[in-house]
Amino acid sequence: MVKIAVTGASGRMGKTIIEAINQNDGVELGVVFDEGDNLNDALDKFDVLIDFTRPVATLKYLEICERAGKKMVIGTTGFNNEELAQLEGFAKTMPIVFAPNMSVGVNLSLKLLELAARVIGEDSDIEIVEAHHRHKVDAPSGTALKMGEVVANALGRDLSKCAVYGREGIEKPRDRTTIGFSTIRGGDVVGEHTVSFFMEGERVEITHKASSRMTFANGAVRAASWLNDKSAGLHSMQDVLALS
Amino acid sequence: MVKIAVTGASGRMGKTIIEAINQNDGVELGVVFDEGDNLNDALDKFDVLIDFTRPVATLKYLEICERAGKKMVIGTTGFNNEELAQLEGFAKTMPIVFAPNMSVGVNLSLKLLELAARVIGEDSDIEIVEAHHRHKVDAPSGTALKMGEVVANALGRDLSKCAVYGREGIEKPRDRTTIGFSTIRGGDVVGEHTVSFFMEGERVEITHKASSRMTFANGAVRAASWLNDKSAGLHSMQDVLALS
Amino acid sequence: MVKIAVTGASGRMGKTIIEAINQNDGVELGVVFDEGDNLNDALDKFDVLIDFTRPVATLKYLEICERAGKKMVIGTTGFNNEELAQLEGFAKTMPIVFAPNMSVGVNLSLKLLELAARVIGEDSDIEIVEAHHRHKVDAPSGTALKMGEVVANALGRDLSKCAVYGREGIEKPRDRTTIGFSTIRGGDVVGEHTVSFFMEGERVEITHKASSRMTFANGAVRAASWLNDKSAGLHSMQDVLALS
Amino acid sequence: MVKIAVTGASGRMGKTIIEAINQNDGVELGVVFDEGDNLNDALDKFDVLIDFTRPVATLKYLEICERAGKKMVIGTTGFNNEELAQLEGFAKTMPIVFAPNMSVGVNLSLKLLELAARVIGEDSDIEIVEAHHRHKVDAPSGTALKMGEVVANALGRDLSKCAVYGREGIEKPRDRTTIGFSTIRGGDVVGEHTVSFFMEGERVEITHKASSRMTFANGAVRAASWLNDKSAGLHSMQDVLALS
Repeated sequence: MVKIAVTGASGRMGKTIIEAINQNDGVELGVVFDEGDNLNDALDKFDVLIDFTRPVATLKYLEICERAGKKMVIGTTGFNNEELAQLEGFAKTMPIVFAPNMSVGVNLSLKLLELAARVIGEDSDIEIVEAHHRHKVDAPSGTALKMGEVVANALGRDLSKCAVYGREGIEKPRDRTTIGFSTIRGGDVVGEHTVSFFMEGERVEITHKASSRMTFANGAVRAASWLNDKSAGLHSMQDVLALS
Repeated sequence: MVKIAVTGASGRMGKTIIEAINQNDGVELGVVFDEGDNLNDALDKFDVLIDFTRPVATLKYLEICERAGKKMVIGTTGFNNEELAQLEGFAKTMPIVFAPNMSVGVNLSLKLLELAARVIGEDSDIEIVEAHHRHKVDAPSGTALKMGEVVANALGRDLSKCAVYGREGIEKPRDRTTIGFSTIRGGDVVGEHTVSFFMEGERVEITHKASSRMTFANGAVRAASWLNDKSAGLHSMQDVLALS
Repeated sequence: MVKIAVTGASGRMGKTIIEAINQNDGVELGVVFDEGDNLNDALDKFDVLIDFTRPVATLKYLEICERAGKKMVIGTTGFNNEELAQLEGFAKTMPIVFAPNMSVGVNLSLKLLELAARVIGEDSDIEIVEAHHRHKVDAPSGTALKMGEVVANALGRDLSKCAVYGREGIEKPRDRTTIGFSTIRGGDVVGEHTVSFFMEGERVEITHKASSRMTFANGAVRAASWLNDKSAGLHSMQDVLALS
Repeated sequence: MVKIAVTGASGRMGKTIIEAINQNDGVELGVVFDEGDNLNDALDKFDVLIDFTRPVATLKYLEICERAGKKMVIGTTGFNNEELAQLEGFAKTMPIVFAPNMSVGVNLSLKLLELAARVIGEDSDIEIVEAHHRHKVDAPSGTALKMGEVVANALGRDLSKCAVYGREGIEKPRDRTTIGFSTIRGGDVVGEHTVSFFMEGERVEITHKASSRMTFANGAVRAASWLNDKSAGLHSMQDVLALS
């Protein structure tokens, strides 16, 4: 039985993860935390921490968990490059699953995107559109950025150089080597992503739509179970799902 | 028989307008112009000028046409506020149809948007997404901006204050009173616009998709016919189609 | 305080209605019923019955409620013509709100569809596509049929004569005066409807997507409140929302 | 230089193929045919026949071409099982490319579908929606059926047994092992296909949209060039594109 701790326990995602832990076999809820609670006080109560908070908090949790020999499943998004480097540093000495999106569907989509990019990417204008609920604070979504990264890698491009996040006021034709991002925010949209490959006379689109946060929560719990007997390293959800 | 002149005659849109003139009854092609040609040399050859070029060129044509007592149908987009004021100035003394999009479908959509905004706009997060071919140089499209204007007017908002053109790096929840714009550029997309009203638990979307430039060209020719016996003023496509 | 009874109380929709009653002001839950329970035993416990079951059950409830001087809000779909005539008969002596879909968004969409049909319907090929979860047993959805009815009425057509429910094996071009229906069933889709008006060179689409059953439940509760002081008659959701 | 003959030369698709032959290097237009013309009279004028007509005509052309040692690229759709068996018979002694859709995008989509079906197909409700212009006479489209076949094969199902072409009047929940087809006909839609995999809480969709018949025509010409030095056999577009 894997004992799991959950941060952000009173938030939208935290609550759903607790529900998923209660519904899944082989795992149990060890302890829950919220802003202000001290992780150090409960280190004997869990094996794996599931964390969907914000970058600064996540880095603090990483430090405590590493020292205590705990494992972490991280769904936090919105890291800058420096924070990302720190996270990768921790992965040298502790087991981490880090994925902006833990659903089966999104991770299959990443595989489809890689294949599509390799076959038609050079001849396509590639655009990524994502929509999320009105409360989401980072933009574009971590999943959209991950999709862009997969496509850019397949094409040998550097996403930080070819990403375009807005076109207002840019008065020139599209450069084929760019990858465009559009961010829609509204209502209670759980999460929608479409990557379009526009060619002359045709287009191919790969779309993922989540209708329930439980999808992500179940993926996170699955990742925690999987991680329990793994050694130090930065693992992806594609590793967890044996999709890589 | 209304005699029509066409500017930008060698461009994508210019060619389609010439084709539409040849296919429609009651109109004939008087003369065509391209960059460098002098409008002044052919003032006896037309009644109405159809112009889908760029703001600076359009203002030059307006000056010549006003002096010569000609009428203009203007589909040019991308005007800034000052240029727009100049255009409105010309309309005091000459008949103008000015519309960023002359299709029946788009102009019906504007009516639908007005009705939707009045009924659910205050309770909705409103987002406008448009897609056009890779060669389009202005963003967002003139049609998307017109849609935003119609929605903002119905809600008593000022579009220049509530429009949001990109969210990268903005780290806060959505403000309900904003109107979001997303711009997609790729392939040979003729023109697609979707306005979404996101509410809690549901959304309503109004979409227009053009599959042929002929749609706009036929609208422009229809506007030219309609304009021929009108007096000075700034007319919309909704006037032409009796939709207002 | 309006006292409400709920049928199908252990089902998906029944549970959501109970939740909505608990969340809304001015209404209270009087009593709940499930298959096998006897409505006659609890006639003193409610003013309005909200019923989202199946046609045969609904007709039985109508008979009891009429005799007892109760009102009914009916969201049941899948009635055949004869059953529909019976329902209309009851409305002569008791107050009924009958609507296949009680959301604000759907009822606004019906208004938009009527306007669109009047302006471009004669020149369009009209197609209605709906998607619902894998458990839904009637097809097409009551909402899709209602949309078709609104469009057909606006065009002076008889839906029972112009509806096309499948094209497999039909080897001929499309007849413009037909209205096509497509039914998609899968996963946990709460409810999606798109009506497309295809013209030469362009199309207009009106889409409604529900992401939560609470949308319908809140509408039903709103209808029950509204109905409480109304007299006999068959009222629509557009009456409730003052959209007609 | 590969000499190509084109049937249905005065039709929508025939004209586009002729245009594509004129635009592509390495091929030349040998001769064109229309209904009533006799293929036997021009056997010295071509190496490969490109045929997008109707099953009965295609079988007649196959007979003539086989006898004369010619090759064929066949884009005809709507074959029944018996006609299909005859076509396969001809392929034993002559080189044929047979594909319901010759675009790069569609054939990539078939690869994506195969991968998606293998990863999530067993846990998904699979639905295929296609839209084409009002003049198309067969339904569902050959491309939609091909997509269904690829998905069914990946899942070890027999499409003839698991395909569902309409749900009107079927009053029961969805059977997960079926594959649903929906057919939309309207306006001038060149061709749109979406395959949706609906799971609990999420869905993945793969979409192809054609905006120009030239896409298919260019694919057909590419197939004809490729076929010219091949021996007898039934080749797919995936063979031509080296996607298999």
